[in-house]
Amino acid sequence: MQPQAIQETYPNEWSHCYGCGRLNDHGLHIQSFWDEARGETYAHFIPRPYHTALPGYVYGGLIASLIDCHGTGSAAIAMQQEFLRQQPEASPPPTFRFVTAALQVNFIKPTPLGPPLELRGQITEVKGRKVTVAISLSAEGIVTARGEVVAVQVPEDWTLPTG
Amino acid sequence: MQPQAIQETYPNEWSHCYGCGRLNDHGLHIQSFWDEARGETYAHFIPRPYHTALPGYVYGGLIASLIDCHGTGSAAIAMQQEFLRQQPEASPPPTFRFVTAALQVNFIKPTPLGPPLELRGQITEVKGRKVTVAISLSAEGIVTARGEVVAVQVPEDWTLPTG
Repeated sequence: MQPQAIQETYPNEWSHCYGCGRLNDHGLHIQSFWDEARGETYAHFIPRPYHTALPGYVYGGLIASLIDCHGTGSAAIAMQQEFLRQQPEASPPPTFRFVTAALQVNFIKPTPLGPPLELRGQITEVKGRKVTVAISLSAEGIVTARGEVVAVQVPEDWTLPTG
Repeated sequence: MQPQAIQETYPNEWSHCYGCGRLNDHGLHIQSFWDEARGETYAHFIPRPYHTALPGYVYGGLIASLIDCHGTGSAAIAMQQEFLRQQPEASPPPTFRFVTAALQVNFIKPTPLGPPLELRGQITEVKGRKVTVAISLSAEGIVTARGEVVAVQVPEDWTLPTG
């Protein structure tokens, strides 16, 4: 069975994100999954030819975007895991939606434009409604960027300004 | 006379960046200017309707991209200013091109999607080939995000992998 991306479980009204919303026709459609064996999250992404920085290399803002959305997705996965630990009989678990409070990216070396990129996320802290995720981005097995996302769970009473 | 964006002075081969390259047909075309009176850099950008996070708000990855490219643009401006201080008779000054080594973004509050965004950049350090820039992003006069970019000057012997 094909695993389901966490972003596929977001309710429609929270699925318009340019980075990871399945309902954003122009967006990147980043999808994040849970790797049970390694206890971490992962995502894959193939940049488009125009996602360039200096020619031949991936645009840093795209890398930041991938880390950003994989961070909030990883936080949502972590919160589900936490929920299932406390209520193992709850199936399916509820969906949680996170936004980014802080984003840090260190560009270690240029990321080649062409091969698929792999993101791996390690949950470093779950504290109340806040989840911290350490993320590596690699191309052809070589880590080219590392980031950290501090994600905060969207309040249940969040009101959509556009309806 | 219309001021010239620093990105307009980049040579063609370094003008394909998705964020700020004038030759990238799909890109954001971020343009950074020097504000002589305030001794800082600025840029304006109007997000497209699909640059959404939760509906009604600007996507964090776009904000990171704006801060990223305005950071490298500000670094290039700072290096030109530095050059002109040392060689005031040199006109026009050479163009410098920077890439991002590290990017930090703190999302202070949701950024409304619709109004133009303003970025202001303050050069906090110029050290050899490294420039650090503190950047604020505001909408309708309210700062919604703050970032820092550590930018490094591209080596003169940089070889383009695609020609």
